[in-house]
This record gives sequence, structure tokens and C-alpha cells, in this order.
Amino acid sequence: MSAFRTIEWARSADGRPLLRLIDQRKLPTRIEYLECRTSAEVAEAIRSMVVRGAPAIGATAAFGLVLGVQEAAVEAGSGVRGGGEPRTDAFRQAFEAVCRRMAETRPTAVNLFWAIERMRNRFEALLPEGVQATVEGLEAEALAIAEEDVSVNRRIGRHGAAVIRSGDGVLTHCNTGSLATVEYGTALGVLRAAHEEGKQIHVYASETRPFLQGARLTVWELMQDGIPATLITDNMAGYVMKNGLVQVVVVGADRVAANGDVVNKIGTYSVAVLAQAHRIPFYVAVPLSTIDLSVAQGADVTIEEREPAEVTHVFGVQVAPEGAAVLNPAFDVTPHDLVTGIITERGIARPPYHLSLPALFRGGDADERP
Amino acid sequence: MSAFRTIEWARSADGRPLLRLIDQRKLPTRIEYLECRTSAEVAEAIRSMVVRGAPAIGATAAFGLVLGVQEAAVEAGSGVRGGGEPRTDAFRQAFEAVCRRMAETRPTAVNLFWAIERMRNRFEALLPEGVQATVEGLEAEALAIAEEDVSVNRRIGRHGAAVIRSGDGVLTHCNTGSLATVEYGTALGVLRAAHEEGKQIHVYASETRPFLQGARLTVWELMQDGIPATLITDNMAGYVMKNGLVQVVVVGADRVAANGDVVNKIGTYSVAVLAQAHRIPFYVAVPLSTIDLSVAQGADVTIEEREPAEVTHVFGVQVAPEGAAVLNPAFDVTPHDLVTGIITERGIARPPYHLSLPALFRGGDADERP
Repeated sequence: MSAFRTIEWARSADGRPLLRLIDQRKLPTRIEYLECRTSAEVAEAIRSMVVRGAPAIGATAAFGLVLGVQEAAVEAGSGVRGGGEPRTDAFRQAFEAVCRRMAETRPTAVNLFWAIERMRNRFEALLPEGVQATVEGLEAEALAIAEEDVSVNRRIGRHGAAVIRSGDGVLTHCNTGSLATVEYGTALGVLRAAHEEGKQIHVYASETRPFLQGARLTVWELMQDGIPATLITDNMAGYVMKNGLVQVVVVGADRVAANGDVVNKIGTYSVAVLAQAHRIPFYVAVPLSTIDLSVAQGADVTIEEREPAEVTHVFGVQVAPEGAAVLNPAFDVTPHDLVTGIITERGIARPPYHLSLPALFRGGDADERP
Repeated sequence: MSAFRTIEWARSADGRPLLRLIDQRKLPTRIEYLECRTSAEVAEAIRSMVVRGAPAIGATAAFGLVLGVQEAAVEAGSGVRGGGEPRTDAFRQAFEAVCRRMAETRPTAVNLFWAIERMRNRFEALLPEGVQATVEGLEAEALAIAEEDVSVNRRIGRHGAAVIRSGDGVLTHCNTGSLATVEYGTALGVLRAAHEEGKQIHVYASETRPFLQGARLTVWELMQDGIPATLITDNMAGYVMKNGLVQVVVVGADRVAANGDVVNKIGTYSVAVLAQAHRIPFYVAVPLSTIDLSVAQGADVTIEEREPAEVTHVFGVQVAPEGAAVLNPAFDVTPHDLVTGIITERGIARPPYHLSLPALFRGGDADERP
């Protein structure tokens, strides 16, 4: 395992809480941490991709709301520490405003909204017990979200390792490892689990322009774990498949629709089409919190369009002419008919997904049943 | 047309010949020229991709051999200027050594070998007339190669424009414009010709990692010509096709085999598979000098593997961990069954290519026939 924490909930010297994030924009050449002391700082860290990856965004947002509920308590009245109870309505309004600001950071990853909703539900449940109890209860809830993420990823890995054979070349896109989650990873967790089981695998990591999560983060994690890996540019995906180097593809997702359509990092759709053309199975590894049964299909998901500078510049170095027109969708939609299976903490869903995905939610974890 | 010359044959103040090349590694942020005064300097310019693009490499190598034949004359005896005739055998051996060094610069683009062979044949034809006549004749031959390239490109453009409809979105990969040729371009020449005919087109230029020829060179040329263009990362090719933005793909090639297999910049194969999956026609625009009937199929062509640093660094900035394993094939092979047509100066070859390509060589140009 890697010797770093993507997300760390800590206290400063004066006893005030803070969220410490590894600044993923600086990796792999510099390991720097960003300390967020306000919910606004957390929101900005999500927006600017200091932290990214659907599960990591969810956990980060939850801790951001812990800071936010403390701010709301202060704003709404006397504050938590000062004694005296603020008015419930003002407290709720202030907290809701923080939730809205957090929800505006990135539109596509459903874990953000899932975490906000879970914290909001907890807020309403705790509110009758008073402000102090609500603030403390939300801190406990955020810690639970983070801890559950680690255990969920381990179970995703265990289920997913079954589709990896020893000797396989595995292509993955973007980063779905410890850095995209609280720890271990989703798709990268599947590869870790296969490796831990003693299977000989070789990972082909596509660099994932424009943000280069594959080159900067995935290769770095794989090298730290001693898992054999080769970095390729995104446009080599067809080349490695045609040359027999890849036997299976495993990626993560930012949102999975009820019909199994997969919204994931830009380039995933191209990889899925190439995999189908080469008869290579294409798996998606996600926690249930990434599956959004309220969305019928991928086309209904808002795709975030990010700044042109991410394409025209690499680490601040200009690589395209001044004023060049640019597309920069952060995600694309892979139709469900290109997806061989969806690996979750409760097992692997197979087509037809409109039946198998709801069954996972109803069924509970096979591992947890007697 | 662009206000620059990719390749310029000139003389220095002291009357000695030199080859002036725009340094394509520095574009688009800096316009710098490199002046080569020896054949070794020309060979290094090709190897290090100061100049790239199959037709441009061919013309550059031809001028390199002009410098080389002058060096050979000096080496073999008294030299051209000093009067006195060197020994024919030594002269030929010295020239052949230059040809070999030039041929070792880059293994894939056939225009390099085509130009060397053409110059070598001219050398043998001229040799009986003496060293001075050979040196002068080879300079004339190199100038002819360059001039023919411009006229060939114009004819490729005229033929190719017929497959572009007004309103089309056109995806192209890598750079096949003025910078890849002596002037005008092959695939980009087709787009220029369509634009000059008044057709409303919109070009989607894939950035073409690792060397970023699309971002740095193609977008730059298109902006100079006022042709509407949008830069995309390579992994957005599937996205733009799925979203209906692309109606036709036109790319160049570094070598076309006798069966129509296309060896071109890495990533071309992925684009071709994606085009087929979306029922989008996929055209290849090349001069006949890029078609190598001596090679039966693409798999028989040596694919150049370039330095890992091109992938792990962008403009000298490190984007992957120290010591990361990397693949960096400069080219890939697109099987002929993914190719809708091959656009040449003598018209468009259609499948089956093992019949249509030789017919082009036999047939002469439709334009040139009465």
C-alpha cells in the first residue's frame, strides 16, 4: 500500500479541525499537502481538482460539510463553542447554503451528491437533539463515509479479481486508485487485489489527457506497489489491443445510470469501442454510491466542460497556438452495450443492467450473508 | 497560404549552400530556423524531428544529399572547387556512405528511401559526365523533388476535395500540412482545397501525443488560413464522432503498403476503428511516393520506437514518475479494410487496393490526360 493518505481529517495546533489533502495537481514530481480550514476552501479544492475521483470527492465533500455545519452554527447564532442555542431555522438555512455551494463544484460525479444527501439526512435526524449534537454527529458521519469507502473498495477488489487471469495484460484509464478514493481504489483496487492474490498481471495505463491522471497518478501508485506497468499515450490504446498486449480492460466511473450507461473520464468511450472491436472484455468497477438509479440513461447526465487551458497548456507550458478553439469535456458516456460487467462491493452486475443493478441494491452483499 | 517556408534551399554570405529548416519542435510558441551546412546536420535534423512528415522528410533528405555529394567530392580527391577530378570509385563510395547515414535517420517513412533512391539513380546517370556535373545535377534534382511536391499536393487537394461536403466536420490526426511537406500539404491540403472551393468545413484536430503535432502545427496552420478548427485531445475522437460532430476523417500516411494497409502516426489506427464503428468514411491522402508497392502489407514495415522521454516529458516538463516504463511507437498500422479511399495526385484509389494502387502507377494522372 502507498505511504500517503489522500484525505486526512486532523486538528491544528489550536484544536480546530482541518482537512488535509494531497495536492494531486503537483504529483508525481512534488508531494504537497493542502490544508482546508473552511468549507469554501474544500469546495475550491474539489473544483480545482486538488482532489478528484468520484469516491474521493464524496468523502471530501462530507468533511467539507463538517466544516460547513460548524460555520453554520456560528453564523446562525451564538456558535457551538460559545454556548447558547442558535435558532434552528437559521442554522438549517446556513447549512443548506453550504450544501448548495458544495454541490456546485463539479456536476458529473454522483458521489458528490450522494455524500451531500447522506450528510443532509443525518443533519435532519440529529437536529432535534440540538446544534452541538448535530455538529458532532456529522463529524462522525463523515468519518464513517471515509471508513466505509476503504472497506467497500476492498470488497470491490475481491469480487473484481475474479475476472483477471494470471498472465493478463490489463488496460486502465485515468486514476481509480488510492488517490481517487479514501484508500485502495476501485478499478485500481481490482488490479491490486489480483496482484495480492499472486496473479501475474501487467498494467497498461493510458496517460489520460488533458489532466494526465494516468501518467501522473496511476503509474505512480502502481510503481509504489511494485505492480508491473507501462505508460502509454491515449492514442496507443488501439495499438496495444491489436498487438495482443491487453486481455481485459478495467476502468472506474463517475456515475452509472440505471440502464448501465457509464459516465467516466473523457476517453473511456473510445477505449470501450476499441475493446469491443478487439473482443476484449470491458469492466467497470464502482461502489454502489456511484450507481444512480434515479438517472435512466447516460445521456441524462450533465457533462462538465472544463477550461480550455487544460488542453492548450501542460503544467503551465503552452502547447497550442494562442486563441485556439478547444473542446474539453471532462467525461464521456459509454453505452451499456459496450460494458461486459459492473463490479461492485456486492458482486458483479451483468447485462441486462436495468434488472441486475436494482437487484444489487435490494440484495445485500453476498459476503455479508451467512 | 502560410507566411513561412518549411524547407528553404539557400546560400550563405560566402556563397556556400545551406538548407534552412523551420524548427518544428519549437512551434507554435517560437518561430526559429535551423541552418544545416553539412549532410550530417541534415540527418540529425530529420532524426530529432526538427523536420517531420513523410514528404518533407523526403525533400529534406534530397537536399541533405546535395550537401553530401559536395562533401563526397571533397573527400574523394581534390574537390569540386579546387579543380582536378577525384577518383570515381572513391567518390561513389563517399556518396553511398552519406546515403546510408541519411537512410538510418528514421525507418518508417518511405519517402526518405524514395528520395534517396531517386538521388542515387540520378547520381549514377550523371557520374560519367564528371564530378562537377554530378554535383550540379543532384542540386537540380533536389530542387525538382521539392517543386514536384508542391504541385503533387495541389493535385491531391483537388481530387480529395470531392469527398468533402459543405457543412462537414472533418477529423484529422497529426500534421499533414505545409509543415509536413514542402508546401500546402496532403490531408491538410485536401481540407485547404475544400475551403478554397468555398465549402464550409470545421476541422477537429487531434493533438497527437506524444509530439503534439496536431496541437502545435495543424491548429497553427489552420488558424493562419482562417479555416475553422477545434483542438481536441486524442481521447476525444470517439466523443466527437458519437456526438455527430464529424462526418469524414482525412489523414496522411508515412507509408502505404501494396494491399492498402496504412502506416501512419500512432493513434491513426484507433481513429480508423472508431470511424468504422460510427460509419464515418476514413480517407488517406498521400503522394504516390508514399505508396510502397514493394511491401506486401503493413505488418512488414518497421515501426520506429522512439525515446521514452517524449512520453514522460512535455516540452521538457516531467509528467510521469521517474523511471516509468513507456511504450513509444511512432506509428501504427491501419488495415486496408478500414480505409474508404486513398487520395493521390492521380485520383482516389478504392478497394480492392491490390488492384487499384498498381493501376494508379500505370495509369498516369487523369488531369494530365487529354
